[in-house]
Amino acid sequence: MLEEKKIPYKIYLEEDEMPTSWYNVRADMKNKPAPILNPATLKPITVEELEPIFCRELAQQELDDTTPYIEIPQEIRDFYKMYRPAPLVRAYCLEKALGTPAKIYYKFEGNNTSGSHKLNSAIAQAYYAKKQGLKGVTTETGAGQWGTALSMACSYFDLDCNVYMVKVSYEQKPFRREVMRTYGANVTPSPSNTTHVGRKILEEFPGTTGSLGCAISEAVEAATTKEGYRYVLGSVLSQVLLHQTVIGLETKTALDKYDIKADIIIGCAGGGSNLGGLISPFVGEILRGEADYRIIAVEPASCPSLTRGKYVYDFCDTGKVCPLAKMYTLGSGFIPSANHAGGLRYHGMSSIVSQLYEEGYIEAVSVEQTSVFEAAQQFARIEGILPAPESSHAIKVAIDEAMKCKETGEEKTIVFGLTGTGYFDMVAYQRYNDGEMSDYIPTDDELEASFAKLPKVE
Amino acid sequence: MLEEKKIPYKIYLEEDEMPTSWYNVRADMKNKPAPILNPATLKPITVEELEPIFCRELAQQELDDTTPYIEIPQEIRDFYKMYRPAPLVRAYCLEKALGTPAKIYYKFEGNNTSGSHKLNSAIAQAYYAKKQGLKGVTTETGAGQWGTALSMACSYFDLDCNVYMVKVSYEQKPFRREVMRTYGANVTPSPSNTTHVGRKILEEFPGTTGSLGCAISEAVEAATTKEGYRYVLGSVLSQVLLHQTVIGLETKTALDKYDIKADIIIGCAGGGSNLGGLISPFVGEILRGEADYRIIAVEPASCPSLTRGKYVYDFCDTGKVCPLAKMYTLGSGFIPSANHAGGLRYHGMSSIVSQLYEEGYIEAVSVEQTSVFEAAQQFARIEGILPAPESSHAIKVAIDEAMKCKETGEEKTIVFGLTGTGYFDMVAYQRYNDGEMSDYIPTDDELEASFAKLPKVE
Repeated sequence: MLEEKKIPYKIYLEEDEMPTSWYNVRADMKNKPAPILNPATLKPITVEELEPIFCRELAQQELDDTTPYIEIPQEIRDFYKMYRPAPLVRAYCLEKALGTPAKIYYKFEGNNTSGSHKLNSAIAQAYYAKKQGLKGVTTETGAGQWGTALSMACSYFDLDCNVYMVKVSYEQKPFRREVMRTYGANVTPSPSNTTHVGRKILEEFPGTTGSLGCAISEAVEAATTKEGYRYVLGSVLSQVLLHQTVIGLETKTALDKYDIKADIIIGCAGGGSNLGGLISPFVGEILRGEADYRIIAVEPASCPSLTRGKYVYDFCDTGKVCPLAKMYTLGSGFIPSANHAGGLRYHGMSSIVSQLYEEGYIEAVSVEQTSVFEAAQQFARIEGILPAPESSHAIKVAIDEAMKCKETGEEKTIVFGLTGTGYFDMVAYQRYNDGEMSDYIPTDDELEASFAKLPKVE
Repeated sequence: MLEEKKIPYKIYLEEDEMPTSWYNVRADMKNKPAPILNPATLKPITVEELEPIFCRELAQQELDDTTPYIEIPQEIRDFYKMYRPAPLVRAYCLEKALGTPAKIYYKFEGNNTSGSHKLNSAIAQAYYAKKQGLKGVTTETGAGQWGTALSMACSYFDLDCNVYMVKVSYEQKPFRREVMRTYGANVTPSPSNTTHVGRKILEEFPGTTGSLGCAISEAVEAATTKEGYRYVLGSVLSQVLLHQTVIGLETKTALDKYDIKADIIIGCAGGGSNLGGLISPFVGEILRGEADYRIIAVEPASCPSLTRGKYVYDFCDTGKVCPLAKMYTLGSGFIPSANHAGGLRYHGMSSIVSQLYEEGYIEAVSVEQTSVFEAAQQFARIEGILPAPESSHAIKVAIDEAMKCKETGEEKTIVFGLTGTGYFDMVAYQRYNDGEMSDYIPTDDELEASFAKLPKVE
């Protein structure tokens, strides 16, 4: 047997090892995700029908479930080089502190000003908007990472950027707004009085702290009622998951470079795009019968779409202006309690991730907020990176799995996605430091009430 | 002539290329910095006299001006591997946007949770404190970067950490406090009522927003009046500059790896340790007659110790409890206007940097706040990193020099230190975004009044 190569603390790929194409896992899926539907006709939507909302090439990517590799345009690859490759980090210190025989790796996406993986898709979407000659784009943001990422991308390509920010995040993260402003974006707290759908939601739920679903509806309305604008989205959509496969492709190349075989791959799941992007190349191997992995999606117990949702057609937004997708969902009217992982407060789940979960390629677990912050603090103190609350869901389960290895003595290799940093989440950390964090979980009755309002399709 | 190697956007050293020793530039200086003096006797201080304040090994490093290389202990090198090597980045996008023939590189120290280079010395100081069997350390922090860095380092080595934070920063950066708390530190706004010296300063200057000098005095008092504690400092001292040479050593190795010869090296200067750390290996080459470089220290016009100060013995702290150093100083009683580069609001300058400046090895320029934030915003939008206000002083002058190259057509190679990120400086960015930034510069009369209170030594 060959001697094991010494694994550095951080594996950085060389520029010529970085991916030149995104990987479209749908091409290798025998059972494709169900088609998204036109909300007016309830028929599968066409590229032409998507074009009033999305840029042309992004609409094509959204519906393309047959092309396995889609080339990353050179302009995007050049931008990627400014903040990528993201390191694959061996958590030597965490392993030692836990006393586990497990080998723990994390793919760290936080080394850029947006603080997360969101920039991977933001720059792609801004590029296609620019290429199409648009004036600008509109979007929603939850935790603020996506809005920041899009602001950066729009600034780079000189596009106008209008961001609807979920009200609870807007209030908890005032400095996010200033970052976006520094990059030239306009930021509006959602629900707002600037759109029809926002006014309607405010009437129905006066004191609402907002949700991604609401903010999406407002951003879509703003895009479709303004000449030269399109809507862009930071998660859920298959196009976003496609762009995020740069995470998984880099991870796989880094592992292969050192002959490392992952046993367990863990990611947090809100809309599902970072998880989907991380796991796609590995799922592709499973689908093609080339390898096997245990894959775990981690979601907050307060917004448990995979573990407690229904796999049905639903609207992607609260205002019901977007296409319908078949997905694990809590109902588009579900507004989760104001937990601090704002980026995971979405009622549904990527249709790709949903289909893979339905077929058993992915497991899912839900975890409570306080236990997530315990893991976050532990990780920060040991590994030196203060993680985003969203990312900390994956940390929590990675630690749990490593502790199971300690019990059994198994030397499993665990890879998890550390999607971002928590530098703009200090209000949440303060709550945790002060012992004031709540762990509200929706009751069965609340979920049933939400399910009752699901659209009847087929 | 050989073909120029393709320079990647980011040069990361391999682990086995990382420095194993710090470089002590004093060993190569013909004219050593003047010795620091015991404030009680006004005689050169000894290691024994320093020991009540500093850890033993750090006291030795402070006074050692003959050993050229000091080995970095393995425990520190292991910690360095968690967040280093810092990338040397080729600013291709900035060059293109400026239309300059200059080649611009920056050494980026912001990829860690402290957000800056401060961690390089924090982990070293915490290590020596732990090795000596101490319970904990006390310190001051200005912008909060040093306090955060020390909190992280103390958490790693399980040491108690007490931070006196300059009041203006404490108020402008509430979230810094939460980061420090997350790492288990106690944070007190300075001046405070918890020390004799703090109470005295509050009586003399009731509405003061504090200064590094005040906070140092409080931290020293807290350390020397508590069993098992020592004082640690994030800048100014020669020991800190020594630890920061990891920046310059990595930079030089990265440049050498690609046969790049720097023409101009630029760093921001507050207490002088990041600048000194960046330039030390290059100054060493100048001192040994092996190479020549133009080196520029950039300081804020509101606190211009090099460009408008006097080169004399002065106290390092407002409370006059610390040793005296011969340095460029504005007087230890000088309290600069509340500008937003909190880390550069120190009245004096590293004695090493001061001596090098006195002998003409270094140039110095001062720049005004608003122009610094203009450069910061420009850099953020083009290079994707939102810089710390401190670091942005170097950006401003790097851009100025690159624009001179555009005029003359010279293809100079400019290297600057990007010491950190501005994620906790969004109040400052907000002021800038709102057009509410001031550019107060001290008058000659104000400086003369401060100089009049300088101690009479020799």
